[in-house]
Formats: sequence, C-alpha cells, structure tokens
Amino acid sequence: MANPTPDYYDDVLAALKARGVTLETLAPMVIEGQSDHFAVTHDEAIDSLEHVLHKTESQDAILTGLALDDLAQAKALPEPLQTRIAEDSGTYGVDEQLVMSILGLYGTISWTNFGFLDRTKPGIIGELNNAQKNGGRVNTFIDDLVAAIVAAAEARLAHELT
Amino acid sequence: MANPTPDYYDDVLAALKARGVTLETLAPMVIEGQSDHFAVTHDEAIDSLEHVLHKTESQDAILTGLALDDLAQAKALPEPLQTRIAEDSGTYGVDEQLVMSILGLYGTISWTNFGFLDRTKPGIIGELNNAQKNGGRVNTFIDDLVAAIVAAAEARLAHELT
Amino acid sequence: MANPTPDYYDDVLAALKARGVTLETLAPMVIEGQSDHFAVTHDEAIDSLEHVLHKTESQDAILTGLALDDLAQAKALPEPLQTRIAEDSGTYGVDEQLVMSILGLYGTISWTNFGFLDRTKPGIIGELNNAQKNGGRVNTFIDDLVAAIVAAAEARLAHELT
Amino acid sequence: MANPTPDYYDDVLAALKARGVTLETLAPMVIEGQSDHFAVTHDEAIDSLEHVLHKTESQDAILTGLALDDLAQAKALPEPLQTRIAEDSGTYGVDEQLVMSILGLYGTISWTNFGFLDRTKPGIIGELNNAQKNGGRVNTFIDDLVAAIVAAAEARLAHELT
Repeated sequence: MANPTPDYYDDVLAALKARGVTLETLAPMVIEGQSDHFAVTHDEAIDSLEHVLHKTESQDAILTGLALDDLAQAKALPEPLQTRIAEDSGTYGVDEQLVMSILGLYGTISWTNFGFLDRTKPGIIGELNNAQKNGGRVNTFIDDLVAAIVAAAEARLAHELT
Repeated sequence: MANPTPDYYDDVLAALKARGVTLETLAPMVIEGQSDHFAVTHDEAIDSLEHVLHKTESQDAILTGLALDDLAQAKALPEPLQTRIAEDSGTYGVDEQLVMSILGLYGTISWTNFGFLDRTKPGIIGELNNAQKNGGRVNTFIDDLVAAIVAAAEARLAHELT
Repeated sequence: MANPTPDYYDDVLAALKARGVTLETLAPMVIEGQSDHFAVTHDEAIDSLEHVLHKTESQDAILTGLALDDLAQAKALPEPLQTRIAEDSGTYGVDEQLVMSILGLYGTISWTNFGFLDRTKPGIIGELNNAQKNGGRVNTFIDDLVAAIVAAAEARLAHELT
Repeated sequence: MANPTPDYYDDVLAALKARGVTLETLAPMVIEGQSDHFAVTHDEAIDSLEHVLHKTESQDAILTGLALDDLAQAKALPEPLQTRIAEDSGTYGVDEQLVMSILGLYGTISWTNFGFLDRTKPGIIGELNNAQKNGGRVNTFIDDLVAAIVAAAEARLAHELT
C-alpha cells in the first residue's frame, strides 16, 4: 500500500502563528460560541482545535489559503486574480468555498457556526478583517479559515457532547 | 425532448402561506439583512424572493421539508426518525443539508447569510423556532427553509448589485 | 451536559436489510471501486462500511430517505411531492442533496466515487434503480443512499491507506 | 450602489486557451455526456459552456485554480504546499472543493456528471491528467476545472430540456 499522507500539523501551526493566530487566541471563541448550549473547558477547546488541525483536509485548505494571501500580498498573482484577492471583492467566494473542506468534515452544525462567526467577526477574526480594510496586509483567506477552524472545533464538541 | 419540469411556484406559496409565511413577511428581512452593504427596496426584495421560489431546486427542497414537518406532526413517520424530527434534535442535520439545495444556487454569500439568520433567528424564523420549543407544531424544517429563502434572496441581490 | 445522540446503527441496518441491502452485498463494491488504486480485503471493506453507518449524519440521512421512499410507495405524501418522488423525476435533486450528509464527512474523494457509482450503477445500485423503472417499488432515495455508503466507505479507506 | 463585478470571460477563455482548452474541444463532451438522455446540438453545447463561463463564481474558481497550477509549475509555492500540488497527491482535495463553486450553481445533477467525468477522464481531461503523470506540467487543478465546466454545461441543459 502507498505511504500515508504526512501530518502537516506543525507546518500549519507555524503558518498560523506567523500571522498572530495561536490555539490560545482561538480557544475562548470556541468556549463562547457554545456557551448557550453547553459548557466547554479551556482544555476541551484546545483539544478540539487540535483535532481539527490534524485533519489532512483542514491542513490543505489552510496551507492553500494562506499561500494565496501571501502571494497576493507580494503581488505575485496574475491579473485579474491579483486584484480580486487583494481587494477581497464582495463577490469573490473562493475563500468561503475553500473552508467548506474543513466544515464539511464536521457536519451542518459547523456551517451555521461559521456563518455566524463570519458575520459577527469576534476577536481575531474581526482584527484580521479590519487590518486588511485599513490598508494592512492581505487577509482575504485567513479570516475565513480561522472562523472555520473555530466553527469546526465547536461543532466537533457539539457532536460529542449533545 | 422531454417535457420541462412544471413550475410548482403556486404550490410552494400556498404551502408556506398555510404556515403563516408570506413574501410580505420575508421582504423586510431581505432588506434588513443587506442594509449594511446596500439599499434594497421592498419591490426588489419581493422580486428576489419570487426568483428564488421559482427555482425547481428550491421548490423540491421546500415541498420535501414541509411534508416531513407535517408527517412528524401527524406522528406518521417511522421510529426513530419520528422522534429525531419531532424533537428537532441538535444533531439532526438533514434540515440544514436540505436547504443547501437552495443556497447552493446562490453561491457562498448565501451560506454566511443563512448561518447568521439561523443563529440570530429574526422575525418569523424565531417565531417558528420558538413555537416548536414551546410545545407547538413541528417546525424542524420550516425555520431553516425560511432562513434559506431569505438568505438566497439577499445573495441574489448582492450578486446583482455589488 | 446533555445526553449523547443514541447510535441508531441497528435501526439503519434493519431498514436497509428490509430492502435487500446488507453489508455483504456492499463489500464487493467497496473492494472493486478502489481496485485500481489499492487492494482492500473483505474484512477491511466491512469494517469501513460499519464505520460509515455508525455516524449520526449517515443514520439520519438514511432513515429520512428510506422513510420518504416508503411514504411515496404508500402514496402518503402530499402532491405535487408524491409525484416528484414516485416518478424519480430527473430534476428532483433532494436525493443527491441528502447523501451529501454522508459524503461530506469523507471529503471530496467520496464525491467523485459517488458520481461514478451513480452513473455506472453497479450491483444492487442498478438493481434498485431498474426495479423502480420497471414499475416496482419507489427506490428514489435508496439507490443514492447505497451509492453514498459505498462511496464513503471507499473514501475512508483511501484516506487511511494512501 | 456599488459597481457590478466585471465579467472576466475573456480572461478566462484566454487562460484556458493557453493550456489547450477551447470551447470547441469541450462541446463534444457536453454532447456525448447527455447522449443517453437527450440530443444536444453543437450550438446548444457551445451556448451552455459560454453561460457557465460568464458566471463570476466560475471565473474566480478557474482563475484561482489555474494560478495555483502555474505557481506550482514555477516552484513558487511554499512547502509543503508546493509538493502537495505538484505531485497531485491523492488526498489533496482542494481541487475538487474548488470546482464546487462551479457545480453548486447547477444543482446536484452537475455533481454526478462531474464524478463520472473525473473517473472516466474522457478527451482533454484525460490528456491533461496523463501529461502531469508523465512528467509534464502541473495540471492538478485544470483537469478538475475542465471536468466541472463540462459537467455544469450538461446540467444546465438537463435543467432546461428535461
């Protein structure tokens, strides 16, 4: 049989950390997001986030999206894609499509979690989104990816705990 | 060539109206939902809702979901499905899956609209959800279907107007 | 915390068996489907099918779809839904939508497996489809559900073994 | 109201043509794909392909995927993403995820069309796939994108003509 797919968990964690995103910054959002439904401890939140980030589909989505953000930031993409991503056009939907690779694994609960996080943009999700709007670096994919990671971690706990 | 699929628009409108859902009750949610992004007139909202409800995929999703709600209400479903739907179990996700038939047609913008509506439950979406929780009739599918119709109508306008 | 969702594995297995579908009939399709890529033993195929059928999302999709087939068979659905499902209209897509609850959990590999099985209709998938076309019972949902179960079991092995 | 999204149809057509993919090469696959169900003329096939390629969601998916292929070919992606895409790893599913931006717009019929094309790889789909396997340029995304364009054009005709 063929070799199993390597686990790129450490690469993913390093790529996120380089953009200011750590499991510690995400855990409170997981806890808060489910607080109407059930109590989640900090350790449970961290554990659920780790599970999400160990999945090959999550890793590929994250590595692909972050690379596109970086390439757009470096103006290394061909036009008109460069402009579509750099300006985070309201009709550019590849970022939301990409995160379905993550959300799909955790069922429909994760979709509504994601929709809510995407619209309310709590914590670092809003910070990343605002940074781009205020002329900072290209964060077209990362805000959606972070929302999806949190949404998936919440959904995973919901499936286990309810 | 085969006959085209009939347009079940009138059946869908009648089925929704029998449960208190009319285009007039949904239009304000379409307008409100996009008010941060652009102005939508009442006529534009009604027109967009009508477009959504003329789609075969919307019609099939709505007719299927409403039938399941009614059958659960009449205790006409086999166990354990009867209990899963009648109690709107937190892990029963077929309702959210079904509405993807509608949302899929309008792109990823409609998904996040839906997630937001599903969590905030404005207007009749919340009324339907609360009615079931308070011991009223089974509304497991209809609240998601209504949220999806509104989310799709919003997304359709966003694609046209932005 | 709330009670966990019960495991309806036995209900699902019984519902499938009542329609002539057993793990033993599905295992050869799992083995055959991946034979270009890697070798799967009979026990591995059975084990993978069991994993798929223990998932809550699989169980809900299967129980919902089989109930709709049975209700259509008993002419217990309201029109025009009764006709849409009983005739397995070419544009009725709720059956394919429903199986995404199963396929979504196993990533994009399972989608293409499903599309191939849906078009080539090997083994019992074709038998179920033909039975309906030849005036037999309503099998609108079950052929897609069976294809999805096989497609998911294949994808699960592909993720583990490649 | 904001400006509408520009139509990148010419950019998309040029990007595909640079890789040997033209509407003329795709039309026969659209005709063949539906030949069991209904007859499609060459002009109808071309017209349906054009409709698919005028959609913003199609254009963004195509431009993003082709850029990733080119960047992988130029070894301009960061590791481990460079290797994941350049080797078209069996578990790298972002290509299939991306094409759901196109397929989603045309309903579930397009998914099964895509799954079948992805497995049988007729015409230029197989040529692109084989070229990469035989050491040629990186075609990880383009073969899926082309299959999705054809699958969507077929589904669009199926919805209109059946």
